[in-house]
Amino acid sequence: MSEAPPARPGDAAPPSVCRWAVLMEYDGRGFIGWQRQQAEHLTSIQGLLEDAAKNLTAGRIVRSITAGRTDAGVHASGQVAHLDFPADVTLSSATVRDGLNFYMKPHPVVVLMARPVLPHWNARFSACSRAYRYRILNRAARPALEEGHVWHVRAPLDADVMHTAAQSLVGRHDFTSFRASACQARSPVRSIDRLDVRREGEYVVIEAQARSFLHHQVRNMAGTLKLVGEGRWAPERVEQALAARDRRAGGPTAPPEGLCLTGVGYEENPFHR
Amino acid sequence: MSEAPPARPGDAAPPSVCRWAVLMEYDGRGFIGWQRQQAEHLTSIQGLLEDAAKNLTAGRIVRSITAGRTDAGVHASGQVAHLDFPADVTLSSATVRDGLNFYMKPHPVVVLMARPVLPHWNARFSACSRAYRYRILNRAARPALEEGHVWHVRAPLDADVMHTAAQSLVGRHDFTSFRASACQARSPVRSIDRLDVRREGEYVVIEAQARSFLHHQVRNMAGTLKLVGEGRWAPERVEQALAARDRRAGGPTAPPEGLCLTGVGYEENPFHR
Repeated sequence: MSEAPPARPGDAAPPSVCRWAVLMEYDGRGFIGWQRQQAEHLTSIQGLLEDAAKNLTAGRIVRSITAGRTDAGVHASGQVAHLDFPADVTLSSATVRDGLNFYMKPHPVVVLMARPVLPHWNARFSACSRAYRYRILNRAARPALEEGHVWHVRAPLDADVMHTAAQSLVGRHDFTSFRASACQARSPVRSIDRLDVRREGEYVVIEAQARSFLHHQVRNMAGTLKLVGEGRWAPERVEQALAARDRRAGGPTAPPEGLCLTGVGYEENPFHR
Repeated sequence: MSEAPPARPGDAAPPSVCRWAVLMEYDGRGFIGWQRQQAEHLTSIQGLLEDAAKNLTAGRIVRSITAGRTDAGVHASGQVAHLDFPADVTLSSATVRDGLNFYMKPHPVVVLMARPVLPHWNARFSACSRAYRYRILNRAARPALEEGHVWHVRAPLDADVMHTAAQSLVGRHDFTSFRASACQARSPVRSIDRLDVRREGEYVVIEAQARSFLHHQVRNMAGTLKLVGEGRWAPERVEQALAARDRRAGGPTAPPEGLCLTGVGYEENPFHR
């Protein structure tokens, strides 16, 4: 039985491969995150997806590349990945979607849509934007219906002040102050297109969009803006923290459960045609 | 140690008792429903609440009455109950809320607000309306983020046709065709104030409001309207099913996980003052 060569980041699919884009939703609780890791007893979303693809192709090795390597406990409603199936495996879009979903049962991970794409299309390198939502449940009582899907903050937050402070992070900046020490990106410079904070009843919702984010960047911005919302930080301090280019100047990392990858943008969007 | 006498439905609180109204949110999965039952190894919301109240009052017996005895697996975002604490137990609203929440940990059941009420106020008998929401996730892929909180229906539903058909159920009718065989209400006549069906993206949302509902009435209406939405029933058949006054003429019971008690209305609303 021949095996498809594993895809490397940036590679176009070799001719022996039929590339599929998948739009995914998952509940990040109970997973070590997107990325497959050495420890075999821990489940990753990637491992689950690739194992399902292996089952669907009767044991062939299928590798995936994703647009956003979400951390443990982080959710997705609009994650995108591509899968390289052996070219002799011919399946319909509905069969790829339903077959992967069948083999990923009963885990809370599903493929919403599957579409064949051209060999040059790459879930990670063709992506021109990522959108994340961070949700805070801002009330006295802990969450019951949304447990594991929100950050519970008891102290009343001023979302308007948070929004004002957030605007100093929009644009092209060195985000060293909001970057995890483990971040492997070559440059700490990123360009934030949008960072909106709004109140929706008991919730404070942060919407962030950029071409790409640094490791923990959204959670570090959320943890910092929460200090502003509580009144423990003056709004101006966010701009000062950014200018310091020092992780110790930024606020703490907000917990993963409030974060959700809501969408990935492409010039050639395989799910919009 | 003296015990407060158990409250009976319709009773005003005796003078030895201080009555509290509580607004509650819960995830109904893993519970046998609101009502305390004989089998001690199964957890009910009522049992959890009353046990928490017992802990909060150092072992005194505290009884509760609720506005809506939700079934196993049914959720609530706006349930209301009252608790009769011994009159010598004096606690602040914040202490009742936080104390009950502390003792109900880690179960997904919380008190959102607690308010002292006058002895004649009764969570069940003072209620003038109940509002329920039934949510259907209408797409090919099973739910990942909303698993246990929606009814998954793959076949495309026409929400507009469902809404039109639903209007024949609005008003005062004999709802025998939509009533559980186990229903213990004396009369099958109920008056539905509102039964709206609308599409919200991948969701079809049914909103129902009435002074009170029969056992399984909302789920039986939802299961019937789903047949209309799929095109398996002509919309007129809902009116014919109602007129038949025969449970066998109605559609099947929709599963509990899509249902949520969203609110209870009172002329004297203890949470609005």
